[in-house]
Amino acid sequence: MGISHFIAVDWGTTNRRAYRIEHGAVVATHRDTLGVTSVPPGGFADEVDRLRERLGDGPLLLAGMVGSNRGWIDAGYVPTPATLDTLAAAMAHPADGVMIVPGVSHIADGRGDVMRGEEVQLLGAVAAGLVPADALLCQPGTHCKWAWMRGGAIAAFVTAMTGEMFALLKAHALIGQDMTGPVIAGDAFLAGVREAKGGDMLASLFAIRPACLLGLRDRADAASFASGLLIGSDCAAHATGGTVHLLADPTLGALYGCAITELGGTAVMVDSEAAFIAGMTRLWEQIA
Amino acid sequence: MGISHFIAVDWGTTNRRAYRIEHGAVVATHRDTLGVTSVPPGGFADEVDRLRERLGDGPLLLAGMVGSNRGWIDAGYVPTPATLDTLAAAMAHPADGVMIVPGVSHIADGRGDVMRGEEVQLLGAVAAGLVPADALLCQPGTHCKWAWMRGGAIAAFVTAMTGEMFALLKAHALIGQDMTGPVIAGDAFLAGVREAKGGDMLASLFAIRPACLLGLRDRADAASFASGLLIGSDCAAHATGGTVHLLADPTLGALYGCAITELGGTAVMVDSEAAFIAGMTRLWEQIA
Repeated sequence: MGISHFIAVDWGTTNRRAYRIEHGAVVATHRDTLGVTSVPPGGFADEVDRLRERLGDGPLLLAGMVGSNRGWIDAGYVPTPATLDTLAAAMAHPADGVMIVPGVSHIADGRGDVMRGEEVQLLGAVAAGLVPADALLCQPGTHCKWAWMRGGAIAAFVTAMTGEMFALLKAHALIGQDMTGPVIAGDAFLAGVREAKGGDMLASLFAIRPACLLGLRDRADAASFASGLLIGSDCAAHATGGTVHLLADPTLGALYGCAITELGGTAVMVDSEAAFIAGMTRLWEQIA
Repeated sequence: MGISHFIAVDWGTTNRRAYRIEHGAVVATHRDTLGVTSVPPGGFADEVDRLRERLGDGPLLLAGMVGSNRGWIDAGYVPTPATLDTLAAAMAHPADGVMIVPGVSHIADGRGDVMRGEEVQLLGAVAAGLVPADALLCQPGTHCKWAWMRGGAIAAFVTAMTGEMFALLKAHALIGQDMTGPVIAGDAFLAGVREAKGGDMLASLFAIRPACLLGLRDRADAASFASGLLIGSDCAAHATGGTVHLLADPTLGALYGCAITELGGTAVMVDSEAAFIAGMTRLWEQIA
């Protein structure tokens, strides 16, 4: 298309972030909670029109769950090793002037995993020089992604249900009754990280309740301990002592950084929004 | 009291089993779902009267959550090493002719755990000669207990939230949408047990969903795989290759037996009801 301006949208399940990008620079942004699950069937074209009213006319490049079977159309997956080139070559076209970035699948040794949306950040971080071309990247969250980049490509990745598990336990488990305090990257969190090394998660989690009952730990520390146990397990399984580049909000970034350091590794914070914008801009340059 | 007959009650959170025992033999039984949480405050004396109407007059010996702060009265805990002697010496007396067995607490290395009800089965199994005086016993369930018996005493124990975790995931997790099939001790269950050895539970659980999505595993096998992963993790952490004596119902016993065998150990099934009756009878002999 050769157009030097476009609107990049990170369109997830429950949130949406849109950026008007002109000649590689963000000139306007819009954020709202109109995630994929809030758009009625057949409603995506209208929502794209409204985004243009806010951010100005022009073509759109969408990434995230908008390209899933719960979104506008299923944009499929490209296999690992995945690059900006293989993503650009597999764009979905739900409407004139609109393209959706495909997700990435990884299958090895009979196990499989998928991502959708995270791939733009990962490849953008390398393209923008925010991380080396060979590196371990981590995107904490409800479903935490660990991605091994090799030669700038997404070579392998794995997803852990770390954030979802914390929310499940807090809302529905017996120990949830004790997990009412705040999560703080302090002593109780670090005790959870060290406990995680024992590899006995189902017992370590249950022990939160008798520890309160027997007065071995302050109930106010239970949520921090549980968080340390889960994040510690996640980091112990995936970050084996080297450098981890964290694409995270400040709160989760601090907790993961704390756990990685406690386990003998090194954590480096990366600006995930800058990585997303760089990834979308490079993709746009390839397809425009 | 010197009375040769009594009523033994295993009074749990959601179920109750009562046995009229005369001269060491069960002569009548009664089971219902009148667990502790179904009895209104102040209602335990009336419920005991009704049990006597069903099973005949006589003193009662109660075990289980009836002795917790959610039950009739808090019967406290005796510390490890716990024996029939230490339990008998710490009985609670909520009413004339009624005694409640205390629970057991275990504190070591700053960690603590408690049990209430399981201790009668454990000590009864040894007393009845169903298991050796030095043995590892396992009571699978919502909160699975692993107990190390030494010289006939409960020397140490740990609780894992294995059954609760399975129920939580099935009811509330994203992967719960795939866990709709039956749990069978077959290939998918064994694959879960082997996967558990990787020690990456948060990722192995999440992987259930992409495995379905990518066609790597039949959705009907997802619940069996998840069960194998959880039970396998539980067994790998606690049954280190030796003999495990299982006090379990046939369904859970088969699954735990299968996992223990797959991990190189030996599982021996023990009649948990016989163990409970033996334990209560020995306790009664000490206090009557």
